[in-house]
Amino acid sequence: MENKDSVTVVVFSGELDKALAAFNIANTAASMGMKVSMFFTFWGLSVIERNKSGKGKKDTLQWMMSKMNRGGAPKLKLSKMNMMGMGKRSMKSLMKKYKMPSLEEMISLAKEQGVEFVACTTSIALMGLDESDFIDEVDRFAGASTYLGLASEGNINLFI
Amino acid sequence: MENKDSVTVVVFSGELDKALAAFNIANTAASMGMKVSMFFTFWGLSVIERNKSGKGKKDTLQWMMSKMNRGGAPKLKLSKMNMMGMGKRSMKSLMKKYKMPSLEEMISLAKEQGVEFVACTTSIALMGLDESDFIDEVDRFAGASTYLGLASEGNINLFI
Amino acid sequence: MENKDSVTVVVFSGELDKALAAFNIANTAASMGMKVSMFFTFWGLSVIERNKSGKGKKDTLQWMMSKMNRGGAPKLKLSKMNMMGMGKRSMKSLMKKYKMPSLEEMISLAKEQGVEFVACTTSIALMGLDESDFIDEVDRFAGASTYLGLASEGNINLFI
Repeated sequence: MENKDSVTVVVFSGELDKALAAFNIANTAASMGMKVSMFFTFWGLSVIERNKSGKGKKDTLQWMMSKMNRGGAPKLKLSKMNMMGMGKRSMKSLMKKYKMPSLEEMISLAKEQGVEFVACTTSIALMGLDESDFIDEVDRFAGASTYLGLASEGNINLFI
Repeated sequence: MENKDSVTVVVFSGELDKALAAFNIANTAASMGMKVSMFFTFWGLSVIERNKSGKGKKDTLQWMMSKMNRGGAPKLKLSKMNMMGMGKRSMKSLMKKYKMPSLEEMISLAKEQGVEFVACTTSIALMGLDESDFIDEVDRFAGASTYLGLASEGNINLFI
Repeated sequence: MENKDSVTVVVFSGELDKALAAFNIANTAASMGMKVSMFFTFWGLSVIERNKSGKGKKDTLQWMMSKMNRGGAPKLKLSKMNMMGMGKRSMKSLMKKYKMPSLEEMISLAKEQGVEFVACTTSIALMGLDESDFIDEVDRFAGASTYLGLASEGNINLFI
């Protein structure tokens, strides 16, 4: 049954600006009464990673990958103009000035509004991560078939 | 009422190649009789910025952001292979050779064909810009809820 | 006639991680019985380029572009963390460890499952390539109107 008011967002990118765009669309859609699911995959997993040090016993390669890709919403960078943090700080400062929510606040707001967070199991293995590396807000761990099932329910399906 | 022949394109990126792809799809869809809306947000705002110097009184941070992100269609770079302009010049030269329209011509063509240009108000504030910074072809300034309303009308909704 | 089980993927990017995401979605959709079309354009053409040296008589500019953009699935890089091949080798090694198919295997699997490969004629000219530069798996060479016709058939239409 197609529900026109159903939205999915694949969050592939792990950059602050793209994550802000994804959550702005998701939260606005949810506030309009649409059903919204976000599917975090590849670098996008870093948006919903716990902000902790990468400890634990891992295969050397996985450890390396998880070090390289140390995530968590507060650590994301801009896709451009990051300039060693200067562009990012400018943007965060302007967001505060205009009383826009931060990414962390947007994540909380999404959950309050019932946005579903799905973390891609295939990417989690590939990135050398496991389920304990993610924030509690994740609703389920699943693969591409789950995503496609959700996407087939509506007509707003974005890859960011 | 869903109209299958309705297309939306979120132009998030400010690179020449992605802008060309966005306008190629938009213009082709419009020429096929589809209703097309383009929603310019974040770096994508630079595609529809006026090509002028960034003067005017602004908050220091906003002035810095607008300087960093000096836009206008003629100044966009390639997302890769730009090589200080060499890749871009090669591409522009090949486009001329094959009599493809330039980005500026594609923007004009889009307007002639009735493609709607919406500029994202949230991003405009975030980038330290204001409505006077944009080309006259912009039809309206609006936020994510306007975009979602347009997207819900059809089933071809792209994020570029 | 809208067929909800119809998927299109525009492959714009020529990076390994984005190509893997595109093929993972395409192959999963095909295995679920959905009709899937992939439209390769711009840098995404490199995913389906033959892995051979760029010989042949070409305009100087086109020769330069084809050199810069030397493609073929085995040569793609990651969009980040490529680190002169180290990140890419890590990822390929982890893919093997978890018995995930390589990109080349995913391309074969896509064809076996009836995924249609369309290569964008406009981009082919712009990149200085011709039809002989592509792998045999390409089903047809066509432009944006063909893509839009396919996209209008379903509601899962992604731009990667």
